[in-house]
Amino acid sequence: MFPMNQWIKIKAPATVANMVCGFDILGFAVNDPYDEMEMRLVERAPNGANIVIINIDDYNLPTDPEQNVAGAALIALIEEYDFSKLAFEVKINKLIKPGSGVGSSAASSAGAVVGANYLLGNPFSKDDLVRFAMNGEKVASGVKHADNIAPCIHGGVTLVRSIFPLEVIALPSPQLHVTIVHPQIEVKTADARSILRQNVKLKDAIKQWGNIAGLVAGLMKGDYDLIGRSLEDVIIEPIRSILIPGFDDLKKACKEVGALGGGISGSGPSIFMLSKEKETAIAVEQEMKKIYEGFGLAHHTYVTTINQAGVEISE
Amino acid sequence: MFPMNQWIKIKAPATVANMVCGFDILGFAVNDPYDEMEMRLVERAPNGANIVIINIDDYNLPTDPEQNVAGAALIALIEEYDFSKLAFEVKINKLIKPGSGVGSSAASSAGAVVGANYLLGNPFSKDDLVRFAMNGEKVASGVKHADNIAPCIHGGVTLVRSIFPLEVIALPSPQLHVTIVHPQIEVKTADARSILRQNVKLKDAIKQWGNIAGLVAGLMKGDYDLIGRSLEDVIIEPIRSILIPGFDDLKKACKEVGALGGGISGSGPSIFMLSKEKETAIAVEQEMKKIYEGFGLAHHTYVTTINQAGVEISE
Repeated sequence: MFPMNQWIKIKAPATVANMVCGFDILGFAVNDPYDEMEMRLVERAPNGANIVIINIDDYNLPTDPEQNVAGAALIALIEEYDFSKLAFEVKINKLIKPGSGVGSSAASSAGAVVGANYLLGNPFSKDDLVRFAMNGEKVASGVKHADNIAPCIHGGVTLVRSIFPLEVIALPSPQLHVTIVHPQIEVKTADARSILRQNVKLKDAIKQWGNIAGLVAGLMKGDYDLIGRSLEDVIIEPIRSILIPGFDDLKKACKEVGALGGGISGSGPSIFMLSKEKETAIAVEQEMKKIYEGFGLAHHTYVTTINQAGVEISE
Repeated sequence: MFPMNQWIKIKAPATVANMVCGFDILGFAVNDPYDEMEMRLVERAPNGANIVIINIDDYNLPTDPEQNVAGAALIALIEEYDFSKLAFEVKINKLIKPGSGVGSSAASSAGAVVGANYLLGNPFSKDDLVRFAMNGEKVASGVKHADNIAPCIHGGVTLVRSIFPLEVIALPSPQLHVTIVHPQIEVKTADARSILRQNVKLKDAIKQWGNIAGLVAGLMKGDYDLIGRSLEDVIIEPIRSILIPGFDDLKKACKEVGALGGGISGSGPSIFMLSKEKETAIAVEQEMKKIYEGFGLAHHTYVTTINQAGVEISE
C-alpha cells in the first residue's frame, strides 16, 4: 500500500468512442485534453465518509459520491476490498468539458479507480478497473458502457468485444494525428441514444461489419488508406449527425484537405478527424474553425495524437 | 502469352465462407477438397466457340458457357481482352461436390479465370480475377458474391470489405486445422438466403461486429483463444441452423473435445470447425461422424488445414 496522507497526481486522457464504424465497441485515447486529479488515502474518521470528493474546477458537479462519476466508480472498487478503516480523498480539476463527447465522465471515473488501485498497491487488474469505472458511466448516462473507459485505462485503440462478460482487447495502431472540434452546443447522450432505431437493415449491418473488419485490419497492418476507407458509418452517423450543425459540410471539407476520415466523437457534439501527418491535422483544424466561424458558433479545437499510455500517475 | 495448345493443370481449393460471424465478408481456403481442371489456349475455328467446357466428372453440369460457372467467369474475362482469334478449352474434374457449401462453384469459376490469366501472360490483377469469377457465382446462386471467390483466388483468410467497388483484404492467420462434415442433404443457397430476416436488432448487430472485430484481431495477433471466443454468430446461425440436422448438438460436442469453434460453412449444409492442434481436429471428426451415424445420415468428412496458396497452376 502507498504511504497514507500523501497526494498522488493523476492525468486522465479524453477519449473518442465509436471511431465511426465501431458503435459501442471501439474507442481511442488522445493526449489532449485530459483531466487532472489528485488523490490520497487517509484514515477514516469514526462515522466518517470513505470517499471525499473535492471539485477544484468551476463545473459545480455533484460531490456526493453516489452522484459523482468518480465517486460511483470508487464505491464499486471499495465493495471488493477491505476498506473499513480507510478513506479516499479526491480532488478533481476537470479540463475536459462535461458534455463535450470526448469522454469527460470516463476520464474522472477511470482516473479515480486507476489512482485508487495505485494507492492500494495495485490489487486489481485493468479489467477490474474498467468494470468499476463503468459504474461512473452509469451515473453519467444511465448505461454501463466501456467504449470510453477502456481506452482511457488501456491507452491506444481498444476493442470492447463483449460487455457482459467484459472483454477488452488492445489494438495496435500506427501513429495517427487527431483533430477535434467541440462546437459549444449541448447534445445529451440519452437523446443521442434515443433517436437511434432499434432495428437496422441486414444489408447495412453487413456493410458496417465489413468496415469494422477493415478498420481493425488497417490499424493492425498500419495501412492508412485502408483505415481511411473503413471510416464509414452507414447506421448511426446518418441519424445522429442531424443533431450536429454543419456536420456533412465539415466532414467533406476536412477530407478534402487530406484527413483520412472521421466522424462524431461518441454521441457528439464533438467531431474528430484522423490524419497521417501533423500538417494535415492542422489544415483540418483550419477547416473546422472556418465552418464554425461562418456559423458564428463558439467552439474549441484540439490538434493532438493518440495517447498510448492511458491514465498516468505521478507522485 | 503461354504456348498455344498446351494443357496446364489447375488446382482450385474449396473455401469456407462467412467464418461464423463474418456473413458475406469473411472466408478462407482449405487444402482439401479441391477441384482439378485442365485448360489450354487454342486458335479459334472460323465461327467456332471461344469457350469449350468439357466435364470429366459425373455431375452432368451444363457445358453451355453461359450456364456454366467457369464459362460465365471466362466470358467476363474475355470481354476485357482482345480475344477475337482465340479460344479456351477447359476440362473440369469436380472433386468438390456441388451444393456441399464449401465453394464448389467458386472453385470452378476462380480456377478458370486464374488459369486463363496464366495462359494469357497474366494481364489481369487478382482483383480483376475476383470480379470476373463473381459472374460464375451469379450463375450458381443468382447473386454476385465474393466471399468464396476471394479466398479461393488469394488463399488464406480474406475480408471482402466492400463488394461495390470490390475490395479484398488478405488477413494473416496462424496455423489452423479445419474439420469439415458434409451431411448429404440439399440446402439451396437461395433457400438459405430467403429465410434470413431483412432487419436485425441493433443490439444484435453490435454484438456481431464486436465478434468480427475480435476475430480479425485474433487472427492477426495469432491469439487462438480470442479466435475461439469470437466465433459466435447471433444473427445468421440461429436462423440457418434449423436447416441442418443436429447442428446444435454437433457444435456442442465438437467444442467439448477442444475445437476453438465453428459453424455453418457458407449457406450449408457443411459444417466446419477450427482447431489449434491436428489431434483435436481428428477428435472433432470422430464427434461429427458419431452424430451423423447416429442419425443414419450419409456424410463425408475432411480433416485439413487453411490453404495459403489459393488456386495453383502446374504445367
